[in-house]
Amino acid sequence: MSEQNKKMVEAITPINEDFAQWYTDICKKAELVDYSSVKGCVILRPYGYAIWENIQHILDGMFKATGHQNVAMPLFIPESLLQKEKDHVEGFAPECAWVTMGGGEQLEERLCVRPTSETLFCDHFAHVLQSYRDLPLLYNQWCSVVRWEKTTRPFLRSREFWWQEGHTIHETAEEAVAETEQQLNCYAEFCEKYLRIPVIKGRKTESEKFSGAEATYTIEAMMHDGKALQSGTSHYFGDGFSRAFEVTFAGRDNKLQYPFQTSWGMSTRIVGAIIMTHGDDEGLILPPAVAPIQVAIVPVAQHKPGVLDKAQELKQRLSAAFRVHLDDSDNSPGWKFSQYEMKGVPLRLEIGPKDIEKGQCVLVRRDNREKTFVPLEQLEAEIGRLLTELGDSLYQRALENRESRTWSAVTMEEVKRLAGEHTGFIKTMWCGDAACEEKMKEEAGLSSRCMPFAQEQLSDVCPCCGRPAKTMVVWGKAY
Amino acid sequence: MSEQNKKMVEAITPINEDFAQWYTDICKKAELVDYSSVKGCVILRPYGYAIWENIQHILDGMFKATGHQNVAMPLFIPESLLQKEKDHVEGFAPECAWVTMGGGEQLEERLCVRPTSETLFCDHFAHVLQSYRDLPLLYNQWCSVVRWEKTTRPFLRSREFWWQEGHTIHETAEEAVAETEQQLNCYAEFCEKYLRIPVIKGRKTESEKFSGAEATYTIEAMMHDGKALQSGTSHYFGDGFSRAFEVTFAGRDNKLQYPFQTSWGMSTRIVGAIIMTHGDDEGLILPPAVAPIQVAIVPVAQHKPGVLDKAQELKQRLSAAFRVHLDDSDNSPGWKFSQYEMKGVPLRLEIGPKDIEKGQCVLVRRDNREKTFVPLEQLEAEIGRLLTELGDSLYQRALENRESRTWSAVTMEEVKRLAGEHTGFIKTMWCGDAACEEKMKEEAGLSSRCMPFAQEQLSDVCPCCGRPAKTMVVWGKAY
Repeated sequence: MSEQNKKMVEAITPINEDFAQWYTDICKKAELVDYSSVKGCVILRPYGYAIWENIQHILDGMFKATGHQNVAMPLFIPESLLQKEKDHVEGFAPECAWVTMGGGEQLEERLCVRPTSETLFCDHFAHVLQSYRDLPLLYNQWCSVVRWEKTTRPFLRSREFWWQEGHTIHETAEEAVAETEQQLNCYAEFCEKYLRIPVIKGRKTESEKFSGAEATYTIEAMMHDGKALQSGTSHYFGDGFSRAFEVTFAGRDNKLQYPFQTSWGMSTRIVGAIIMTHGDDEGLILPPAVAPIQVAIVPVAQHKPGVLDKAQELKQRLSAAFRVHLDDSDNSPGWKFSQYEMKGVPLRLEIGPKDIEKGQCVLVRRDNREKTFVPLEQLEAEIGRLLTELGDSLYQRALENRESRTWSAVTMEEVKRLAGEHTGFIKTMWCGDAACEEKMKEEAGLSSRCMPFAQEQLSDVCPCCGRPAKTMVVWGKAY
Repeated sequence: MSEQNKKMVEAITPINEDFAQWYTDICKKAELVDYSSVKGCVILRPYGYAIWENIQHILDGMFKATGHQNVAMPLFIPESLLQKEKDHVEGFAPECAWVTMGGGEQLEERLCVRPTSETLFCDHFAHVLQSYRDLPLLYNQWCSVVRWEKTTRPFLRSREFWWQEGHTIHETAEEAVAETEQQLNCYAEFCEKYLRIPVIKGRKTESEKFSGAEATYTIEAMMHDGKALQSGTSHYFGDGFSRAFEVTFAGRDNKLQYPFQTSWGMSTRIVGAIIMTHGDDEGLILPPAVAPIQVAIVPVAQHKPGVLDKAQELKQRLSAAFRVHLDDSDNSPGWKFSQYEMKGVPLRLEIGPKDIEKGQCVLVRRDNREKTFVPLEQLEAEIGRLLTELGDSLYQRALENRESRTWSAVTMEEVKRLAGEHTGFIKTMWCGDAACEEKMKEEAGLSSRCMPFAQEQLSDVCPCCGRPAKTMVVWGKAY
């Protein structure tokens, strides 16, 4: 057993003792990331990257099914281009990284390493858009972006992160709004159906929206510790960027018009959400749809004749339907059990001489360690069933956690008491005034997560100021 | 018809009149790229990016089939890290782009935007490698890299380009050399089988090898105009980087050892090779394996009842086996024919009222415009056959072009005469001295492409100096 392997079986910090340390332990011991020599930037190791690849594969399919096409934009944004839309540059300039030298010479104009690519897409749209017949343009790109954050944590906040950014332009405002909603629904479906993370869909308040957007829509998830994680956002820009970048087209009336624009993104942050929603004291628990290994085969008494052959045969057979890994290393079965639990592999398949005699094997669920003895001829069906059940359980458990940590409040006293006693979501009415939102932050330490699409009428007035309420807001502490 | 569409049908510069302009015309008119506001950086448009996605998909599958895993390294390299291996930094420093500002502050140490990632991988290997049991580590990443080139051309040379870079470490030199060869063979197979581009496998001379490598292996292709394009390279590093970065492992004898290393890469440059190998006066011709659209369905007399329904039905049916696009726009069939020829779609399927009556359709090959009338019930088989034949023809044509432009020479006079009269490959013997290689450049304008694995004994002496020859070299003018 190598040094590296030995480290793997050490226990991690208990989840309810120090959640932050538990999270860091998992990132390291499940071999998801490594810290790099570039401050604030991580390395995605094969197992961590494989999760992201599975996410990419599913999302990319969903995007293409609704007519989106992938493109690749430059990594750099000339400063003058970034400055064309005022709100946008104000939001991003403070965390830009700047290239000032190239090929041994000082550059005439410094180049920002893209923090997001609205400006580049607008510049391109202005080149290629001619007529309303060209619309909509439905583009997406998979890339990394850079934001010079002060404090960083793997997946959740790092100076470089990987994501997809969709950018579309449309003939009418209605179509652009519909696109924004469609993509938010796509993210919500992806989180709930594939990642088994329940989310709340809603709209961001003015102060929380994306720099330069008219409206930002979001899906908000609750982590195990009750904190919120913004998991995907979709922005409606109106024609603000189009006007700033002079993107025009000849309309049906043959007059020049400005198209309406959207952008939407989901990032490697979502891997952090998976960890913090489903993990436990034994390590990661991966939703089957994105697990790099869905079934880990661990031979028992593998030195006995026939065991490894049978394990190999099962691996071959099951690989047609599932992502399967056979561990035939010299490590003990117990060590292997711990390792695949740490890595969150949904199902473990144990097979030993006695099982072979009986024509069966043992399947063990990662989440509840439930054992099932399965006749070999029913293996595919049984694995399929258990993976589905495990996924459903993960979702149910996350939903229950969220429900048990969600409260409603009608007075500021209630809000402060709840926020003092618990970490979770607090729902209140709100007058819409940024001053009251600010007061929530100062007095209760809560930020507005969103104005959920699913509204409730909790009372008639804002708990901060007593003025008439306009909307219900979900508040929380956020990652 | 929009302004953009009108532009599409204008003819391009004839291939034999001005090859460079012909190339640029295709990049633009087949909608592969757009020029960006960042000097020297291009945008890959949906059609251009879709070709790259197909390339990625096939190559990634080949890499994974031989046990390679994808990872993601940071975009930046701290200057001190880049400087650890002397030959390497000497080669790359002159064309680095440097980030000197981040988050509004001057950085303590400037960061290079990666031109290649050997240094980052070594840094990571030093963290994770412990024992010989961990070896080999077989990593790859898909990303873009930046080299501050002076003159740029779409795909062939740009300041940012997309590629994959494989990085592996091994217990023994033999295993690392075998990996280097395996990956070169992988590239050669990919080019010949999928891109239908014949290549010459060989080794680079000392002066042409990668900065920091002990040996660089290459595949060299010949373009339509007789110039060479280096299409993929594979490097053997020995333990030079390992020593520089202190990457060590506990060997079988329990003593610390340095692993042996390789790297290998193929880039979006290969899209340039596809264009320049297969294209003609009508535009692009795409090898079927990477064509975003393999069959373009063009309805004839589409206003007549039943035509669009039938075209739609065929599209649905054929999509199970091929990448199919139905163009039911208002443009004329003639305009559509030109457009899909420009875009290099391998097969066009025409269907009109008379065809429907007869239960047939027309298939037209892009390369030779050969028409085949096909009974609808045989459509899948016939499309499969024609795509294979078209691919074989492309390969054959490229091979014939290369053979007709390849010469052997034994004296310097012959070399100079041939190089003066033709553009192509010239094979000669070589003594191995860099001075003679330099003389070839100065006197005949030729650079060494490679020392092919398939050697021939053309004479006993070097044509430059008359000393005994060590090896045969292929010389040419290169992109």
